[in-house]
Amino acid sequence: MEGNPIHFGIIGCAEISRKVSRAMSLAPSATLSAIGSRSIDKAKRFAVENGLPEAVNVYGSYEEVLDDPTVEAVYVPLPTSMHVQWAVAVAERKKHVLLEKPTALNVADLDRILEACESNGVQFMDGTMWVHHPRTHKMKELLSDPNRFGELRSVHSDFAYCGDAQFLENDIRVKPDLDGLGALGDTGWYCIRSILWANDYELPKTVTALQGTYFNKAGVILSCGASMVWEDGKVATFHCGLRINLVMDVTVHGSNGTLHLNDFVIPFKETSAPFTFGTKNGWAELSLGWRPLPSEHVVETDLPQEAYMVEEFVRLVKSIKDSGSKPDSKWPTISRKTQLVIDAVKASIDKGCEPINVVS
Amino acid sequence: MEGNPIHFGIIGCAEISRKVSRAMSLAPSATLSAIGSRSIDKAKRFAVENGLPEAVNVYGSYEEVLDDPTVEAVYVPLPTSMHVQWAVAVAERKKHVLLEKPTALNVADLDRILEACESNGVQFMDGTMWVHHPRTHKMKELLSDPNRFGELRSVHSDFAYCGDAQFLENDIRVKPDLDGLGALGDTGWYCIRSILWANDYELPKTVTALQGTYFNKAGVILSCGASMVWEDGKVATFHCGLRINLVMDVTVHGSNGTLHLNDFVIPFKETSAPFTFGTKNGWAELSLGWRPLPSEHVVETDLPQEAYMVEEFVRLVKSIKDSGSKPDSKWPTISRKTQLVIDAVKASIDKGCEPINVVS
Repeated sequence: MEGNPIHFGIIGCAEISRKVSRAMSLAPSATLSAIGSRSIDKAKRFAVENGLPEAVNVYGSYEEVLDDPTVEAVYVPLPTSMHVQWAVAVAERKKHVLLEKPTALNVADLDRILEACESNGVQFMDGTMWVHHPRTHKMKELLSDPNRFGELRSVHSDFAYCGDAQFLENDIRVKPDLDGLGALGDTGWYCIRSILWANDYELPKTVTALQGTYFNKAGVILSCGASMVWEDGKVATFHCGLRINLVMDVTVHGSNGTLHLNDFVIPFKETSAPFTFGTKNGWAELSLGWRPLPSEHVVETDLPQEAYMVEEFVRLVKSIKDSGSKPDSKWPTISRKTQLVIDAVKASIDKGCEPINVVS
Repeated sequence: MEGNPIHFGIIGCAEISRKVSRAMSLAPSATLSAIGSRSIDKAKRFAVENGLPEAVNVYGSYEEVLDDPTVEAVYVPLPTSMHVQWAVAVAERKKHVLLEKPTALNVADLDRILEACESNGVQFMDGTMWVHHPRTHKMKELLSDPNRFGELRSVHSDFAYCGDAQFLENDIRVKPDLDGLGALGDTGWYCIRSILWANDYELPKTVTALQGTYFNKAGVILSCGASMVWEDGKVATFHCGLRINLVMDVTVHGSNGTLHLNDFVIPFKETSAPFTFGTKNGWAELSLGWRPLPSEHVVETDLPQEAYMVEEFVRLVKSIKDSGSKPDSKWPTISRKTQLVIDAVKASIDKGCEPINVVS
């Protein structure tokens, strides 16, 4: 991309901030200009440990990052319960918002953020990385092929990892006052996004939680699942959890084709990402095997997916900056749909697995 | 195995009879001695086309196969609605019963078959092949490892293939008077078996059909799914269908390990069968990839899985024949549990996806 890079600030020195600050240094059109923590010592340590350039301003508060005149856009990786306050504060300072997922505790909260971004003319995007991976675009091409894939029939998605006993009681992801959505917000978010992605972001008609939601002592979800049905009969299911060995599966089923991948959230390797695609698969004579076999694909990349995410955000920010255009609505709309489905799953869990109509 | 081979009869010249008659010729302890169809011409054509030896008796009725004194055991691949009549007839002639799946339209019908086998002292086994594949035993070893796999948390299974428009209205699998269970009996059977297998055949406490069951014009299920919950909180889901590109997935999730396979019902290739097993998978530094990666396994075999099935059945038959022991209860019990879950899914579909308690 031409011209000067977009200057970012980061508020909060979470583990994910390390990854995203690295992405900002790798992305050709971005640069990190400020980092802030509520503790100046923590911010300084972050700067040293991550080898940030001298030019990066280091602050002992979030406000100072927002007020730094060099900062044009802010990455917000704070706990979910703090998103409304801080994302709105960023927007009100006319700075663009890159917000970590889950975007909010519910869609009403997200709407407050989106309204603040819109009324201040700043770009909003959430921090879901995998949708920006070149593999994702390649897979979408195949899913859009009426011959090789045919009609979409169903999607299954599964994202879980295994926290230890300490994590499952004390991590912020399982604290009701910090990340009240627990596994649903932390891992289910990705599953729901993958299902919407496969459906070209068409919302399901109904969402029904699966029996068997598992809670910790504080009542936060540690594992759950849901099924969904679309107006035309398509279906989907997902499972998510924090007490299961690491798994990141998406399977997309069409009338003619099948897509499998087992590392959709974070590819097995940083610069090459595999998937399997089968088309018009059947049986050999006497069904003694498959014919044809599904084929393996690998997408090689120059950058990690989080750098592609930063580049996409920068592209939209530059468009506003350079041409004075309005913020692009694609990613905010997708964030909102993901949050709507999160809300429906939560509502269904709360109502004993009753089907919930999704109303946008 | 030592001694004379067990002599089989087959009633019905379905496509699957070709595969199983070949298995009987490959299995060292079995031999085919009679084949019967309601049409003598069809039976003769079957014998010629499949290169059956001259010694095989060819009949124009099922009764003649059952009455053939050389026949010790009968393989019954008839449409499900005919299972009670013919499996009971086989048992009453004191011949062992190898019955194609689904075993019956419901567990009450299966019980009539099992009672006939028990009271006549003959072995019963259903024709689910994949459970006899050496790969299945190898995978079970890994799932039983408390360190590498840990505690079982959930299972997801998916078996579907794509029939054409003609098939979906006219094949016996979708005729209410022949195979009234449709996709649930034809493909869901395997999914349910895989879920029970992973659970060491412990029955779930409740079974709930997923919203979105798809029926053909005659009201037969063309695709459906269900979720299950166990007493201790384990969960499972499956999808099955006849209008989706070929897929045969099982994923078994433990606290420490994950098993994936994508060809569980019929391996991609006849003599080598793959699976993937991950243990204690986590992220590399900055979550820039996985560490360790899941590992690929391949199990090579001398025989196709259907020959291992025949060998297992023969082993049990020989035990009765040689030592006068009672029929073994392992496989009949497993058939019955599979059928119980089929019944529960059907009941839940009929009741608008209400959870059904499974009572054995």
